[in-house]
Amino acid sequence: MSKPKTAITPTRAENYSEWYQQVIAGADLAENSPVRGCMIIRPWGYTLWENMQRALDDMFKATGHENAYFPLFIPLSFFQKEAEHVQGFAKECAVVTHHRLEADKDGKLVPAGELEEPLVVRPTSETIIGDAFSRWVQSYRDLPLLINQWANVVRWEMRTRLFLRTTEFLWQEGHTAHATKAEAVEETMRMLDVYADFAENWMAMPVIKGEKTAAERFPGADRTFCIEAMMQDRKALQAGTSHFLGQNFAKASGIQFLGADGTQQYAWTTSWGVTTRLIGALLMTHSDDDGFVLPPKLAPQHVVIIPIFRVATELRAQKFNDTAVRVLVDERDERGGEKVWQWVRKGVPVRLEIGPRDMEKDSVFAARRDRAPKDKQSISRVEFVAEIATTLQSIQDWLFARAKAYRSENTRQIDDRDEFYEFFAAPKVAENAPTPIHGGFALTHFSGEVELEQKIKDELSVTVRCIPLEKGEAGRCPFTGKPSAQRVVWAKSY
Amino acid sequence: MSKPKTAITPTRAENYSEWYQQVIAGADLAENSPVRGCMIIRPWGYTLWENMQRALDDMFKATGHENAYFPLFIPLSFFQKEAEHVQGFAKECAVVTHHRLEADKDGKLVPAGELEEPLVVRPTSETIIGDAFSRWVQSYRDLPLLINQWANVVRWEMRTRLFLRTTEFLWQEGHTAHATKAEAVEETMRMLDVYADFAENWMAMPVIKGEKTAAERFPGADRTFCIEAMMQDRKALQAGTSHFLGQNFAKASGIQFLGADGTQQYAWTTSWGVTTRLIGALLMTHSDDDGFVLPPKLAPQHVVIIPIFRVATELRAQKFNDTAVRVLVDERDERGGEKVWQWVRKGVPVRLEIGPRDMEKDSVFAARRDRAPKDKQSISRVEFVAEIATTLQSIQDWLFARAKAYRSENTRQIDDRDEFYEFFAAPKVAENAPTPIHGGFALTHFSGEVELEQKIKDELSVTVRCIPLEKGEAGRCPFTGKPSAQRVVWAKSY
Repeated sequence: MSKPKTAITPTRAENYSEWYQQVIAGADLAENSPVRGCMIIRPWGYTLWENMQRALDDMFKATGHENAYFPLFIPLSFFQKEAEHVQGFAKECAVVTHHRLEADKDGKLVPAGELEEPLVVRPTSETIIGDAFSRWVQSYRDLPLLINQWANVVRWEMRTRLFLRTTEFLWQEGHTAHATKAEAVEETMRMLDVYADFAENWMAMPVIKGEKTAAERFPGADRTFCIEAMMQDRKALQAGTSHFLGQNFAKASGIQFLGADGTQQYAWTTSWGVTTRLIGALLMTHSDDDGFVLPPKLAPQHVVIIPIFRVATELRAQKFNDTAVRVLVDERDERGGEKVWQWVRKGVPVRLEIGPRDMEKDSVFAARRDRAPKDKQSISRVEFVAEIATTLQSIQDWLFARAKAYRSENTRQIDDRDEFYEFFAAPKVAENAPTPIHGGFALTHFSGEVELEQKIKDELSVTVRCIPLEKGEAGRCPFTGKPSAQRVVWAKSY
Repeated sequence: MSKPKTAITPTRAENYSEWYQQVIAGADLAENSPVRGCMIIRPWGYTLWENMQRALDDMFKATGHENAYFPLFIPLSFFQKEAEHVQGFAKECAVVTHHRLEADKDGKLVPAGELEEPLVVRPTSETIIGDAFSRWVQSYRDLPLLINQWANVVRWEMRTRLFLRTTEFLWQEGHTAHATKAEAVEETMRMLDVYADFAENWMAMPVIKGEKTAAERFPGADRTFCIEAMMQDRKALQAGTSHFLGQNFAKASGIQFLGADGTQQYAWTTSWGVTTRLIGALLMTHSDDDGFVLPPKLAPQHVVIIPIFRVATELRAQKFNDTAVRVLVDERDERGGEKVWQWVRKGVPVRLEIGPRDMEKDSVFAARRDRAPKDKQSISRVEFVAEIATTLQSIQDWLFARAKAYRSENTRQIDDRDEFYEFFAAPKVAENAPTPIHGGFALTHFSGEVELEQKIKDELSVTVRCIPLEKGEAGRCPFTGKPSAQRVVWAKSY
């Protein structure tokens, strides 16, 4: 039996995690740098991130937020203000201890100028922003205070993977302060909705909105909400979080205000963020064995035109009525076939191949990235141009529908302990062979014991990904027999 | 004699550098943070930066550049690859030496997990980007490589001032590699032109394009070009630099390619950057004793509408034909007079005050920020709306013309040594009194001796700001009597 040729080796089924790395390499999205755990985001990946930023930023501004910028460094004394918070991050902090380099007696450069107080490279900015808020907030008239920051952060991870878990990553962090608990909770949920909207309508990635259990709560938060997506290896990926921080950080940083009633009160705060991890999520939602697949709304280019003969610059003149269509003519001096496969691996939604005969007929060969590479259509240029906006929307819709169907096929309501264990048990394979794709999302009742969750995690590497906001019916926990208010989502996860 | 009331105290004439701080505070642009030398950029300042970014980014993309992102940290061994480069930055590096925090025996958190190799927080990225380029560039077909990065950088400055000199600042750094020297020089000059275009046409800030002398060259560059602007204290401010790096960094990082002729060659590289310092430059070019003055093309808001009575939300409905006009209705529950002065200090180009009587007449009271605060005009709403685009352009043009006239008034061709020393001599003042504004740009011939430049710097704190690209006539150096190819710009500087 001849093996079908794919543009990416290995395929998802052969070795999922190696496939992931190869899709990134094949699409020129990013690469590992010589700095431990830090990635280089290449132009194709960075433009995707810029498009994500633009869309999210517009949504943040439409919901009343303003951007600002706070220091990269956090003095150790600030970082310690919230006890749970510092505990949560102490093990993964890059620490600046010196402020210059000096030659030692052998002429070797070594750190010099030791700082009186070490500085932590921000892993998140609640404490340093909280300090600013404590100065900015004096009266109820200063509230709500709705701030967002686009920044780099550093968490010293021991095992890193491009986009999914890197020592340095890019993100946005929203930080808001409110006069009442109700308003802060409302903000927390509003931003969760914004994230879900972005995931589904821009990334074409279906998500479940829910709350985290105590085990997965943000250090220092009262409640943590998240959106969870299913990847093609059926693991869950947390794609965004929104935290209701109660008055914990307000008390730690002294964010107090004079209420309308004349009393001094602590503010209620929230924080919420998404990161460059979204690129990994997008990749694992849509890509196939030929490489990256881009939802049109975020694609750096919508259409790539590949002349199959040496170049006719007049192709640039292909007019698209819709100026929102991003078109690239690939005039590089390379073989047409090689170019085609490069663009397949990069995931451009639509490819146009144009040879001399097509030019004569004023037609093009069009291929959609969401279909098989050989599935090309000869179509008149005029018709293609007239339909391109519809075509792009149809690709966007199809990617979402396909991802939603995949999730649905691999989600099971499970009411029996043995079935649960069987669902998640890894199939037996030869030593050193990669684990085949298995499992999925189990929607199972749960009576909520922390120890039980830990036991299941130890035995199966499966955890509660979230307690869905959409509650469904009450029932009985198959592990304890106790009553359960609703099903929760169990899965292996990134 | 009664002192005229100004919205900012002190005035420029009274104490220029304190005036600078007060304009920033009065406009809510930024503030010092508890982290030594690091600033917090507040929303009004950050939105200005976003507008600058957007305009520059469009210009970079129009000239063929793509954005990417490289690690925040640079391993010490990389940093040392270019000898002059490391010398130039070693004294001002933040150094990460540990990767976690641990409680010591007294329970105090201290740095732990010492790194094998210290990491330098990037002060600039030539070495880490050069390393990536050495992998990306293999053949002449991979050139030119035109990359830009928007990022934060850290230079441990001992004396800091908001925007002008901060430990952490935001910037963009362009890095390009070319097959030939001629192409790299062309790129260096192209980006200098982009910066000059941006400074003059967006910031309304006239600049002189020129080359730096050896004393002010970027560490590791063959040639450094700059744009220099005159501030209102008549000092020069370097607003952007473009470096021709020759093959220095290509050799240090091994950026080699197979030429079309089959030979292995080193690439020619450039780098160029502008920073959040531009906000300080913009401030000191246009602001007055009432506060910040914004050129309309970069203003976060163009028009602010201030209802002089308790609010009529129908004001929002003021229709502006031009959707590019950014309008804010200030509905806050504060006194109208207080609001007016807040917006004066924030520098919004046009203020509209609307009271009940204006509403009746369907007219508005309009004030331009480039005129005196009391200079208001009653004008019909319809007429105001019809003319707003023209008004904004006229403010933009006037700010540029005014700044250019100021520079011209304070620039002198000097051909005599004594006149030169007199021009820059600080007027005598009482002890502890601020130095009055004096001096300016001296256009003076110079025979180029490094020692002479150093002597003048020691005696007058005056240096060659640049050797203008516009050469003018040859002449004789008034200090040495030797021939000089052209006049150079001498000035005190930031």
